[in-house]
Amino acid sequence: MTLDQSRDLTAERLYHLLRLPFMKEHLRNQVNTTHTHTQRERERQRERESSAPLHYAFKKYYGVTMIKLCCHMFGVVCGLYGGAVNNLGSPEQKMKWYLPVSELQFTGMFAMTERGHGSNVRGIITEARYNQSTQEFIIHTPSEDAQKMYIGNAMKGHYAAVFAQLIINGESQGPHCFIVPIRDQNGVMWPGVTTTDMKHKEGLHGVDNGILIFNNVRIPRENLLRKFGSVSADGLYSSPVLSKSSRFNAMLAALTPTRLGLTVQAMAAMKLGLVIAVRYSHSRRQFGPKDQDEVKIIEHQTQYLRLMPHLAAALALIFTTRYAAGLMDDALCQGQDLQSNRALQALVAGLKAYSTWENVACLQDCRECTGGMGFMMENRIPSLKCDSDVFVTFEGDNMVMLQVVVRELLTQYTKLMGNNLVMGLIRNWTSSVSDSLRTSFLGFSVDKVGDLMFLLKAVSYRERVLQRSLASRLYTKVKKNKDEFFMAWNACLHHVTTLAMAHIHRVTLEQFALAVRECHIKEDRALLTKFCLLHGTSLVYQERAWYLEHNYLTPNTSQQIRSQLLELCRSVKDDALKVVDDFNIPSCCIQAPIAGVPNPRAEWAFYPQPQYPSSTQPLSKL
Amino acid sequence: MTLDQSRDLTAERLYHLLRLPFMKEHLRNQVNTTHTHTQRERERQRERESSAPLHYAFKKYYGVTMIKLCCHMFGVVCGLYGGAVNNLGSPEQKMKWYLPVSELQFTGMFAMTERGHGSNVRGIITEARYNQSTQEFIIHTPSEDAQKMYIGNAMKGHYAAVFAQLIINGESQGPHCFIVPIRDQNGVMWPGVTTTDMKHKEGLHGVDNGILIFNNVRIPRENLLRKFGSVSADGLYSSPVLSKSSRFNAMLAALTPTRLGLTVQAMAAMKLGLVIAVRYSHSRRQFGPKDQDEVKIIEHQTQYLRLMPHLAAALALIFTTRYAAGLMDDALCQGQDLQSNRALQALVAGLKAYSTWENVACLQDCRECTGGMGFMMENRIPSLKCDSDVFVTFEGDNMVMLQVVVRELLTQYTKLMGNNLVMGLIRNWTSSVSDSLRTSFLGFSVDKVGDLMFLLKAVSYRERVLQRSLASRLYTKVKKNKDEFFMAWNACLHHVTTLAMAHIHRVTLEQFALAVRECHIKEDRALLTKFCLLHGTSLVYQERAWYLEHNYLTPNTSQQIRSQLLELCRSVKDDALKVVDDFNIPSCCIQAPIAGVPNPRAEWAFYPQPQYPSSTQPLSKL
Repeated sequence: MTLDQSRDLTAERLYHLLRLPFMKEHLRNQVNTTHTHTQRERERQRERESSAPLHYAFKKYYGVTMIKLCCHMFGVVCGLYGGAVNNLGSPEQKMKWYLPVSELQFTGMFAMTERGHGSNVRGIITEARYNQSTQEFIIHTPSEDAQKMYIGNAMKGHYAAVFAQLIINGESQGPHCFIVPIRDQNGVMWPGVTTTDMKHKEGLHGVDNGILIFNNVRIPRENLLRKFGSVSADGLYSSPVLSKSSRFNAMLAALTPTRLGLTVQAMAAMKLGLVIAVRYSHSRRQFGPKDQDEVKIIEHQTQYLRLMPHLAAALALIFTTRYAAGLMDDALCQGQDLQSNRALQALVAGLKAYSTWENVACLQDCRECTGGMGFMMENRIPSLKCDSDVFVTFEGDNMVMLQVVVRELLTQYTKLMGNNLVMGLIRNWTSSVSDSLRTSFLGFSVDKVGDLMFLLKAVSYRERVLQRSLASRLYTKVKKNKDEFFMAWNACLHHVTTLAMAHIHRVTLEQFALAVRECHIKEDRALLTKFCLLHGTSLVYQERAWYLEHNYLTPNTSQQIRSQLLELCRSVKDDALKVVDDFNIPSCCIQAPIAGVPNPRAEWAFYPQPQYPSSTQPLSKL
Repeated sequence: MTLDQSRDLTAERLYHLLRLPFMKEHLRNQVNTTHTHTQRERERQRERESSAPLHYAFKKYYGVTMIKLCCHMFGVVCGLYGGAVNNLGSPEQKMKWYLPVSELQFTGMFAMTERGHGSNVRGIITEARYNQSTQEFIIHTPSEDAQKMYIGNAMKGHYAAVFAQLIINGESQGPHCFIVPIRDQNGVMWPGVTTTDMKHKEGLHGVDNGILIFNNVRIPRENLLRKFGSVSADGLYSSPVLSKSSRFNAMLAALTPTRLGLTVQAMAAMKLGLVIAVRYSHSRRQFGPKDQDEVKIIEHQTQYLRLMPHLAAALALIFTTRYAAGLMDDALCQGQDLQSNRALQALVAGLKAYSTWENVACLQDCRECTGGMGFMMENRIPSLKCDSDVFVTFEGDNMVMLQVVVRELLTQYTKLMGNNLVMGLIRNWTSSVSDSLRTSFLGFSVDKVGDLMFLLKAVSYRERVLQRSLASRLYTKVKKNKDEFFMAWNACLHHVTTLAMAHIHRVTLEQFALAVRECHIKEDRALLTKFCLLHGTSLVYQERAWYLEHNYLTPNTSQQIRSQLLELCRSVKDDALKVVDDFNIPSCCIQAPIAGVPNPRAEWAFYPQPQYPSSTQPLSKL
């Protein structure tokens, strides 16, 4: 398939999706959300009270539909462009610029990143100068570094949500978002706009990424999305948000739902990779005791040790994603602006980083654990890897995401400590010490290492200590030594990213533990308990050096954690087949012949779907 | 480019290479090696005595030419097929089946792996029955699992070196290698042979991989490569190697040079990735102190912490590869059979595993550290990743390679201990304890952690302890508990692979240290010393949990190791530009516009090549 064919196919698929009745309804609802939330909220409340399973089903439905629908193109056109209009536009602007997208009258694109500014979006330099005489904005690309880059749908889309510095009478009001026409229905370019195709990428070939360049492009005054700032006909700027910085943060909040969508996509890729690798590991045989049948490769210690922790992490991430989606749902239904919910933004940022990295690591292990078969395209893993690899750097580079998490953690911490940060640091130092004494007692008690409570306390302890020590280091550098803030922050960056990962790890283990507690089917609960223990053990094992350094683990308990990890991985390797079946992915979406789905183009790759080693019933659907 | 176009281009490139005069000479020499080694040995001796630099230059030349020439296709056609003929054939067979390849009269393929047996080659089931009446072997694929799979050049090549169970009068003599005609110059298939195209893979699109199926294919008796076993006209089998198992190992030794070639290819990919990522990191700017220019992204702590340890590992691997190539060169020049040099086989196996995994990890970090630009094909990293990903599982899955290493380590260990393994275990337990006391004294002395000697001792100590404890565990399981060997081995597999990695890590650090000692240019030596320290620090840091568990590091020294890692990474980040320049890769081979090599198809990606931050002179070529 050529690049153009891939792109056309994606566009066709997108149009097909958008024509589905429930999608149309869903998209229209987005426009009407703010008007109807009271009623919807009531409905949801009723639904919850009358039928908890329905609520559960809704969440499940959300998961599954997102997996199928949240293809990247959908994300760009409806999620990002639509998200910008819905979050930054007035009600009239939503009707004008978003509703037609849901009715397939045109497609949009989202133009934030510039050649010179990706992670540091605040520094974008595209200009939008207000021209009072014509009541127009003049959108302009002043330099090569200002070119809008990696713009999805750039070679086909009709309107772009363009972020530019709003300049009135030579004074900048900071970045704002403008709707700029790019081409009409016949493909004729809007005057002053040029696009360049960026062509081939590692994956995501169905999405065209291109460059937008604006040469004094004129757009009407009404095209400034005006929720956080508007310009009157005579050039007076007004905004409900006073500080430029808060205004900018409010705009960035528009990215939050898309980031959660990315997590869902990463989880979908990871689950698919795991279905394929786990099934093949239960079919394929290699090596074995002398003069006996070769064993299934899942029996090799290294094989289950590589795959099972990813499966446990996948479950933890599924439960955490549902939790975050629930929070977002609640926030939106209560008519909250996302920008005011910084804790949710931080949670989603951390989840995006952890899930997308975990996906990359998991797919790599799935590839290696399926050997040569895993390198063949027909078995899906290569394209999953190539397509989802970019998740770790786009919609917010993971390293930046981790910093978002820590800024929020430190803000909470400062609030908690009140104004007297010094007293706070001393107080927390003492409590940290007693903490250490109290919890490391557990560390010495070998019997307890296998308790979920021990693991939960361990990950929580680690997060707290890292948070306190980071606050203390930054305080010393900035307040005492008068270091410049960026320099101080950068000198602690390894500490910052470590804390952020510790935080999101803790959240996933807690969410997993809550999901286990809420599970009322006995067999499922027993199985989930094992995987939850495995996830916790794996998290502590990865960081056992830190726990040893802090005397939270002794050499003995640390070795105990390793044995426990090996034993848990061994004990769940057969259950793994049930768990991947309960991901409930239809065969037509799995396709890989090594996972038991025949493909006439690659009969040589077919391995029949393995049977459960034991006669136990499959789990209810996860 | 379509699949067929990619493949044709590769074939053209291969023919072009093989027509180069020095290549023709090189390939012809391969055939004549066994006849002329005494003379060549004398020449080499003279060369060494008269001019050490020439020897150095030879090694460099070896490295550089290998990088350019060892494309996979060349490896398959000349390395694997040619290696089989040269290692397993008689002198006459070499003239008949290898020389024509070097003269482009036909191309070969290497058919070992079967659908059912990849890692466990000993279990292949393709049959070669001797038919005395016609003095032919009848090559046959008895089942689907016997199909020869992943065969490079299967859709174009003329002759295959096929591994099959040699059966005479119903009795199997174990796997042997046969030359089987596949198709003639006009593409007409040999009777009974069918091939199937396996089509698309994650990478390596220029190589066709296919399936060979034999339906009672008849070949002359002379087509059995007869160095390790031959069949007389009347069906009598004879071999210079008595045990089937040794014979099989001798045949596998033919793979050793190809595995070293793979390491060289992995190093080439890794070096190229590092050139691109390091240069871009010194060009691209993002974030910075308030009201000042943004900083180069290499200044971000996480950026140099991700890239610098890979650069240090690359240098260590370059020196270790040269060392292994030297050993192989010596062995071949002394007319040794590779199969008798098991230590070399183990070294190459370990090097193959470490270098190919390190390459995958390095390229992933290079991709992430170059953000969106790194995801664009024009910047090379995606194709490097996709092409070299398969290295970790082919020509011997890395997990199997690690087991090869450990079998050799345990063999050495048993020899060392003599027959009395129990006494040996007790003796080593005591020496291990005293070892621990002696060396962990160093661990407590904070000043010493930064010494190369401390790091060398640490990695060496770890290897020894892991080796002894593994020998002891296996002894207990097999000798005392009478466990079946495979089961005992499998229960220790995590330990086995950990030991193998510890071994090859130690070897690379030692080879790096030796290279530093042998470097007589003062500035180069100072620079290499820093990278060598970094490599050692990084190895100890990765395994600090183990050192803490064994009281070899204290919590304090462990934290010291982390600070040292951060500080070393910071201190070499500018030197990194020099080092990657000294890889001496021509611009035409770098191509990536973000590394300062313009590309008219992607002007948008161009960043000028960064200047050295300081005015120091570049290094002499590494």
